Amino acid sequence: MKRYALIFVGALLALAAFAAGGASAARSASPPPGFPFTPVDLTHVLRSGIPIWPGDPEYRLTPWATFENDGYFLNELAIGEHSGTHFGAPVHFHEGAPDAATFTADDLVVPAVVIDVAEAVGDNVDYRFTLAELEAWEAEFGAIPAGSAVLLRTGWDRFWGDPEAFLGFDDEGGLHFPGFGADAAAFLVNERAVAGLGIDTHGIDPGNDEEYAPNTLMLGAGGFHLENLTNLDRLPAHGAVLVIGALPIEGGSGGPVRVIALVPHTE
Amino acid sequence: MKRYALIFVGALLALAAFAAGGASAARSASPPPGFPFTPVDLTHVLRSGIPIWPGDPEYRLTPWATFENDGYFLNELAIGEHSGTHFGAPVHFHEGAPDAATFTADDLVVPAVVIDVAEAVGDNVDYRFTLAELEAWEAEFGAIPAGSAVLLRTGWDRFWGDPEAFLGFDDEGGLHFPGFGADAAAFLVNERAVAGLGIDTHGIDPGNDEEYAPNTLMLGAGGFHLENLTNLDRLPAHGAVLVIGALPIEGGSGGPVRVIALVPHTE
Repeated sequence: MKRYALIFVGALLALAAFAAGGASAARSASPPPGFPFTPVDLTHVLRSGIPIWPGDPEYRLTPWATFENDGYFLNELAIGEHSGTHFGAPVHFHEGAPDAATFTADDLVVPAVVIDVAEAVGDNVDYRFTLAELEAWEAEFGAIPAGSAVLLRTGWDRFWGDPEAFLGFDDEGGLHFPGFGADAAAFLVNERAVAGLGIDTHGIDPGNDEEYAPNTLMLGAGGFHLENLTNLDRLPAHGAVLVIGALPIEGGSGGPVRVIALVPHTE
Repeated sequence: MKRYALIFVGALLALAAFAAGGASAARSASPPPGFPFTPVDLTHVLRSGIPIWPGDPEYRLTPWATFENDGYFLNELAIGEHSGTHFGAPVHFHEGAPDAATFTADDLVVPAVVIDVAEAVGDNVDYRFTLAELEAWEAEFGAIPAGSAVLLRTGWDRFWGDPEAFLGFDDEGGLHFPGFGADAAAFLVNERAVAGLGIDTHGIDPGNDEEYAPNTLMLGAGGFHLENLTNLDRLPAHGAVLVIGALPIEGGSGGPVRVIALVPHTE
């Protein structure tokens, strides 16, 4: 049933694109013929009302140039470096450590490993992915290669449109959402030498982890995080390649990012 | 001599990375083993003092959370949608046309065609790439496939560090830098159905083109622009694939972007 539903959605989208007419013609031939990957977008749309970490800057898009005055239109974008789907660099947690601009194109094209724990998570706002679960996952899917970005799918992106639920505020203003347990994060950083950790919640650290253990470990090793991802259910456990469009902000602790996964046709 | 100089720079960078120690270990295995492309960064670093279009918002990176108060560090980023290396959507020039958020992952993974006119440009601040030159290029390199992003290399990125020279102000405040001629742009849009136009100057329109003909044509066809690109000399004429990390800004006319080109190993 699910498969048929997807086909139906696809047909509707194709009709919509056709109705849009000339506007979509320029986009019809991408991706390149013969390119052996399907692009998958792991990025939430940026708009007012997205979940914002308590105390972080408000997201603001302010009209600047106008058709009337300037003949063209553009906005000023004001955004916290860790709002929306975003990238985090070592200096986010470690003073003097590398900033966002130090990540080269080589650093930003990395193999993805996707661990889907959405079923185990269910509605448990305090779920932590443990080392025991990681060991069981590796026994089934194979060891995680060095240099991978390990993406944890908790299913939490379904709450993106409801910031209160997404962040999981309690009565004391504490946060509750799933994340990596400290033991699993330490193993991935120290024993698997991963390049980065990613997740579909607002933090690789669980909401109630006030020590920020996974971030402290991962960024302390010179790696990165990707937070507020979506569409992780569309990736295979192994084989996808991430192209991480992190803005090269000098002095930046990270920044809003477009993340496009390339899924091999053979998967 | 040039090649040896580059090797020397590479050795220095390798030494610097080695000196940085553990911080770079997490990045050592990327890109994925067996991945048939070399990533090339087409993006300038974002920092204070970059060239800014006259009247556009100032680039501001403002410290927000601090290690002392928050246990972590992050900035607020404020930037015009068309500052730094950036992406432009149809609504930048056409009221009611599609915004940045309408570009899907499929739209953002496109074949690149690179036309290198740096020699013809020389120091001519008012150079326009003409249809006659485009026809000569196609006679030598082959017809431009539909759906391509056509990137014009003028060599102007060498002035990026000198905003006055990069924008080419004259005594009346007019701008002077190379761009696409209206005839070449019209041919690429109408006869070649390209997906987008890109350039290493601040505009696909030449600095002194107050009609913005190339932008009006390209964005009018539903396509995009990429401006302030760099490193185009590292791409082949045909064969590279762009992964355009455009931020999906709802209502956005475009935005700062990380552009990573994937150059096939066989090229």
